[in-house]
Amino acid sequence: MYFMIDRVRKVAADHPDWKTKQPWKAILENDTAYLANLSDKEDDEICIRTQAGLTQEELTKLYGDFYKMAKHPRFHALFTDLTYNPMIQLLHLLESKGFRNYIVTGGSVEFVRSFSERTYGIPPEQVIGSHFQYIFTDSVNPSAVRLSPTNFTVVVKEEKPENIALVIGKRPVIAVGNSNGDLQMLEYTDDRIGPSLQILIHHDDAKREYAYDDGAVQALQVAAKRKWTVVSMKNDFKIIFH
Amino acid sequence: MYFMIDRVRKVAADHPDWKTKQPWKAILENDTAYLANLSDKEDDEICIRTQAGLTQEELTKLYGDFYKMAKHPRFHALFTDLTYNPMIQLLHLLESKGFRNYIVTGGSVEFVRSFSERTYGIPPEQVIGSHFQYIFTDSVNPSAVRLSPTNFTVVVKEEKPENIALVIGKRPVIAVGNSNGDLQMLEYTDDRIGPSLQILIHHDDAKREYAYDDGAVQALQVAAKRKWTVVSMKNDFKIIFH
Repeated sequence: MYFMIDRVRKVAADHPDWKTKQPWKAILENDTAYLANLSDKEDDEICIRTQAGLTQEELTKLYGDFYKMAKHPRFHALFTDLTYNPMIQLLHLLESKGFRNYIVTGGSVEFVRSFSERTYGIPPEQVIGSHFQYIFTDSVNPSAVRLSPTNFTVVVKEEKPENIALVIGKRPVIAVGNSNGDLQMLEYTDDRIGPSLQILIHHDDAKREYAYDDGAVQALQVAAKRKWTVVSMKNDFKIIFH
Repeated sequence: MYFMIDRVRKVAADHPDWKTKQPWKAILENDTAYLANLSDKEDDEICIRTQAGLTQEELTKLYGDFYKMAKHPRFHALFTDLTYNPMIQLLHLLESKGFRNYIVTGGSVEFVRSFSERTYGIPPEQVIGSHFQYIFTDSVNPSAVRLSPTNFTVVVKEEKPENIALVIGKRPVIAVGNSNGDLQMLEYTDDRIGPSLQILIHHDDAKREYAYDDGAVQALQVAAKRKWTVVSMKNDFKIIFH
């Protein structure tokens, strides 16, 4: 969302009507009350307007440029420095043991790919995420894969194991999540033949990060029932940020 | 196709009507004339009937079992021993130089994944191919990703670079193909910023393999125009099969 707000402001000069038209007006005037209650339709419109039609390379570059500069308003640090220290430690440990680490995210795949290698040591081909439909065209030179203005696929809930099956072709051995959107991926991993590990991160540290159960209630219930490892950020994370 | 014919015969006892109903009758009676001219609809029906509803694991296992036994009718060798020797050499060379090799195939992704690691040293997560839609369900135990009886996605032509963008997230440095179905992938690689290599394999050896330009005419034309490397199997392959 921060990226999309930045993009809208950068191209606003070409769209004089945005000054009086929602949701653009709210973005240009930083109307946080309005932005906190965007409809799904407005969300989609902003997403399409700021990304569709670009080539995959252009979008990845825009994200990369944004994340070299952009700071989090509460923590006053670069977004890319706000990675969880224990997550980085776990990724490095697993990699050293021969695991191949993937990020499976509801976020835009280009967004996460733009910093995943630098930040997590995870190359673009090990990121699975939400995405526009890709359209290859060689009718303009050079040929390129462009993002279609329609058919945005969101990779959450059932779509996480479905896209793991598509891209990886086998069940993960270990899955780590933090919300209901990860529940099906955790079940899919749990039901693997052979050993497996499921970890659910609980955001319960209002002081150092955030505390909320919203969007994780069902995952916490299933975790208790299936005896998954629930990690309290408050009690189990010695250091939060990298 | 050999796999699907084998599957139909194995489950025919449960479908007595197949004895008199096409295309099943032709499969059971080995009516090669009929099978050579299947309609797209019949092709789809066979594909759906022999694969849809299975879990991804079940289908991969069925393919694996088939390819441990099945022999090619002309060469009287296991299908999995009929890999191209120079292809294996190139894959090993590239891997030793730090490249990550992918197979991007119009064939079924589960089909190729069932032997790619053993045969080519390419693990399942480095195979991109045609596939049914995947449907995750946890309403039966254990939870699994099953193949939907609808929405078979064929990965050829434009869909090759589109799926490379989706799965890998960047342009390949080297692409090797042998048909019009590879043309767009070769263009996409050629139009990469920086060095790249395109190879088109020409099946022109009727004696040791096959000779045909059918389905490759356009690719051969573009290869000449774009100065891609065209490899003659007759003149450039010292050994054909592994």
